[in-house]
Amino acid sequence: MRVPMENELEQLKTRLTEIHDLQSAAAVLDWDQATYMPSGGAESRGRQLATLARIAHERSVDDALGKLLETLSPLTSTPTNTSTDASLVRMARRDYERATKIPPAFTSRLYDHMSKSYNAWTEARPANDFARMQPILEKTLDLSREMASFFPATGHIADPLIDASDPGMSATSVRALFTELRRELVPLVEAIASSKQIDDTCLQGNFPEAVQLAFGEKVVRQLGYDFTRGRQDKTHHPFMTRFALGDVRITTRVNEKDLGDALFGTIHESGHAMYEQGTAKVLDGLPIGQGASAGVHESQSRLWENLVGRSLAFWTHFYPALQEAFPSFRTVPLKTFYAAINKVERSLVRVDADEVTYNLHVMIRFDLELEMLEGKLAVRDLPEAWRARYKADLGVSSPDDKNGVLQDVHWYSSPIGGTFQGYTIGNIFAAQAFASAIKAQPSIPSDIAAGNFAPLRGWLTEHLYKHGRCYLPEEVMKLATGAPLHIAPYMNYLRTKYSELYNLG
Amino acid sequence: MRVPMENELEQLKTRLTEIHDLQSAAAVLDWDQATYMPSGGAESRGRQLATLARIAHERSVDDALGKLLETLSPLTSTPTNTSTDASLVRMARRDYERATKIPPAFTSRLYDHMSKSYNAWTEARPANDFARMQPILEKTLDLSREMASFFPATGHIADPLIDASDPGMSATSVRALFTELRRELVPLVEAIASSKQIDDTCLQGNFPEAVQLAFGEKVVRQLGYDFTRGRQDKTHHPFMTRFALGDVRITTRVNEKDLGDALFGTIHESGHAMYEQGTAKVLDGLPIGQGASAGVHESQSRLWENLVGRSLAFWTHFYPALQEAFPSFRTVPLKTFYAAINKVERSLVRVDADEVTYNLHVMIRFDLELEMLEGKLAVRDLPEAWRARYKADLGVSSPDDKNGVLQDVHWYSSPIGGTFQGYTIGNIFAAQAFASAIKAQPSIPSDIAAGNFAPLRGWLTEHLYKHGRCYLPEEVMKLATGAPLHIAPYMNYLRTKYSELYNLG
Repeated sequence: MRVPMENELEQLKTRLTEIHDLQSAAAVLDWDQATYMPSGGAESRGRQLATLARIAHERSVDDALGKLLETLSPLTSTPTNTSTDASLVRMARRDYERATKIPPAFTSRLYDHMSKSYNAWTEARPANDFARMQPILEKTLDLSREMASFFPATGHIADPLIDASDPGMSATSVRALFTELRRELVPLVEAIASSKQIDDTCLQGNFPEAVQLAFGEKVVRQLGYDFTRGRQDKTHHPFMTRFALGDVRITTRVNEKDLGDALFGTIHESGHAMYEQGTAKVLDGLPIGQGASAGVHESQSRLWENLVGRSLAFWTHFYPALQEAFPSFRTVPLKTFYAAINKVERSLVRVDADEVTYNLHVMIRFDLELEMLEGKLAVRDLPEAWRARYKADLGVSSPDDKNGVLQDVHWYSSPIGGTFQGYTIGNIFAAQAFASAIKAQPSIPSDIAAGNFAPLRGWLTEHLYKHGRCYLPEEVMKLATGAPLHIAPYMNYLRTKYSELYNLG
Repeated sequence: MRVPMENELEQLKTRLTEIHDLQSAAAVLDWDQATYMPSGGAESRGRQLATLARIAHERSVDDALGKLLETLSPLTSTPTNTSTDASLVRMARRDYERATKIPPAFTSRLYDHMSKSYNAWTEARPANDFARMQPILEKTLDLSREMASFFPATGHIADPLIDASDPGMSATSVRALFTELRRELVPLVEAIASSKQIDDTCLQGNFPEAVQLAFGEKVVRQLGYDFTRGRQDKTHHPFMTRFALGDVRITTRVNEKDLGDALFGTIHESGHAMYEQGTAKVLDGLPIGQGASAGVHESQSRLWENLVGRSLAFWTHFYPALQEAFPSFRTVPLKTFYAAINKVERSLVRVDADEVTYNLHVMIRFDLELEMLEGKLAVRDLPEAWRARYKADLGVSSPDDKNGVLQDVHWYSSPIGGTFQGYTIGNIFAAQAFASAIKAQPSIPSDIAAGNFAPLRGWLTEHLYKHGRCYLPEEVMKLATGAPLHIAPYMNYLRTKYSELYNLG
């Protein structure tokens, strides 16, 4: 049988692949900028990236693309049509509708402002100078509100911003989730804080860079990150980037005094990368050939970093190799090391936080950005509000803004709203997906202890990775685990693991 | 005073910079492909590069660009107008007229064919299989003739192909130059061949890669290659590439058994790179912000590699550092080393040839490609014609095609015609420019012996590099040296140097 509208589908794919090629080229230029570019290249690189972005955007809002999508929309009209083509048309329409709502002149203004803001922040943060950022952040807030205004009014001004990273989520649904999680997390954190604390001094020492890099690569190769379709390079702020199904790269940074930075960072990025490397080949080069959302993506980096990489089963297998590579561990028992890498501590800096307190950092940011967007919190009062929330939620308070309100790049490099919730959604869904995998294949924990990661990776690929962005996050979550996003598996995971680690009653 | 047609000039620059940005992005993707890309990335990378090339081409032949250039043409009408803007309009018109003559459908066909041809050659060369390449090369010849046919008939079918790399040159002018050079070179090569031969065994040994790379970088840093605006990486086939004035990169390859490969290759590429790094800042991002032609570019790689890098003055300075880095030279006198790196040998392979016989290799190829284009030599007879010419000109004959007609990538990756003459033009002009520099600043040889390369680089920058592609090659040569291209300085250089090295009468 002839495929309906075969000709139009081909035209659509040609157009979308061209846009994807321009975006992939920009991703290569970004990667180069973050890894190897000499300092002299910065000025022109900014212009080259802006040119690629502008041309990709022009083609993304082309009327002819809109007409093609219109013609092809019957493909998506039957709810049972789950073919790749139907998914493609559905997601491409979403993208087109979003892109055409934002005026190009606004995008230029925003791009200009955010690039100035980022440059100012790189100086203001080390100088602990929030006063310098205040007027800039006020303008960012105005632009963020303006951005939201291009979308039809829904329940909350932040909704279109949240939807951009985590489609289908809203201020209301995230708040409900976070309230529930917070209710359970806070007593757990308190119980841990009043228990005997873990000694993690074994993680400090002198760990040569080359040995750390080699060990990290050995680990993630065994997890299943495919180096014939990827590579690892050094950078300041580690990230994963996909140029194509056959070229998904990770980056890392090394701290010779602290073993955990590079190791868990590398496992984290390889989690993102295995997700991309596991998407179906037929999706490559199309807007559905990528992870489903920020939250679902983060669930996979977290799953491999925490649920696998910080588990006793994992280290049962890898600890001898670690002891071989780093002699100082030869006198440290496995259980001591395992406890050290899972130490919980109420601290000031999100990126250094353990997996239990991490979400409290995220919730503070999420709540504060909603308050700013709602007009309830002025930018000038932000540092004080930040300190108050840290005191209340984590019992700590930063003496400076550098490790306070200036610590994250997000508000200083992109619009306010929509960038933080994905981290916690990721933590929650990681546990949900992991529980489903183990339920389907109960041998997974013992496979991990034996250094065999293929069963877990295979299950994730089959139930989650291969779908790419064919479905909305909530659909993909349900497809993979049979249930919508819920916190029970996550709290169950945390309680079991940390009750044992901290001898909780 | 207001600049005439300021508004149109701005529009022109905006359009040309956009095209340049797309080409620079493609250059970054090419560089990545040749240095770091994992094997899995190849398929998509080809498509991404084709997309960038297609969009850049569409914009290069845009009617609106043609109309702007038409409007601006009065700027170039007074022969005394040598402003940058006049140069820009003049060169952009040349590019536009060239680009619009070639039908896009032909470009696609050619691109497809050449990429298939290149892939076949990478297998056929090691397999010594010319029979496989013969039908492919016949089609390449047809396409090369078709390409020439898009241009108005001039003296010779190869003229438009030669003009593409070396604007202003033609089959007639190159032939005249080569005939004259050949007349003088052949007796010199014969005189050297009948003298006592040089022993160059000191160059063979075991030279660790990391030490070679570090030594090469130390040398070219001192020559003046600016690493804050560039970097060196490893690749299979070394090249120089410019992404911007602030980002001009070189690549190298290392042979641990032979010291010369990486060292002279690195100096060669740094010569190309210093030319690009020396172009005026105001030209950056425009089509005049690059070297003037293939021949003029090669003159600068050759000048630094041979006239500087293989001179006694240069090694008077660097030899102690070389001996320090590579202990086997500690018992080798400077003169022995200097003779070894300048050994003349009639051999089969162009890229390994010394600076005296090198041009004979080039002339063989140039003559054969003209004969093919003229229809006087059939592709099936090419291997035999190749062997006959090598026997006649160099007194050697390859037993196989691998080191015969299959040795160069050029005929198997680009149209036949126009790609070889630049190497010899480069050698000739290198000596002409070097002689002019020394005439203007007689201390240059002693500066070199003292490790001070700034006077030479300064003269070249002021008289040649800074002009970029503001002028045609013949103009830029005259501007720099006061004379058109001529062989006297080159033959004078070769005779002086090699008479001494070989004790010629």
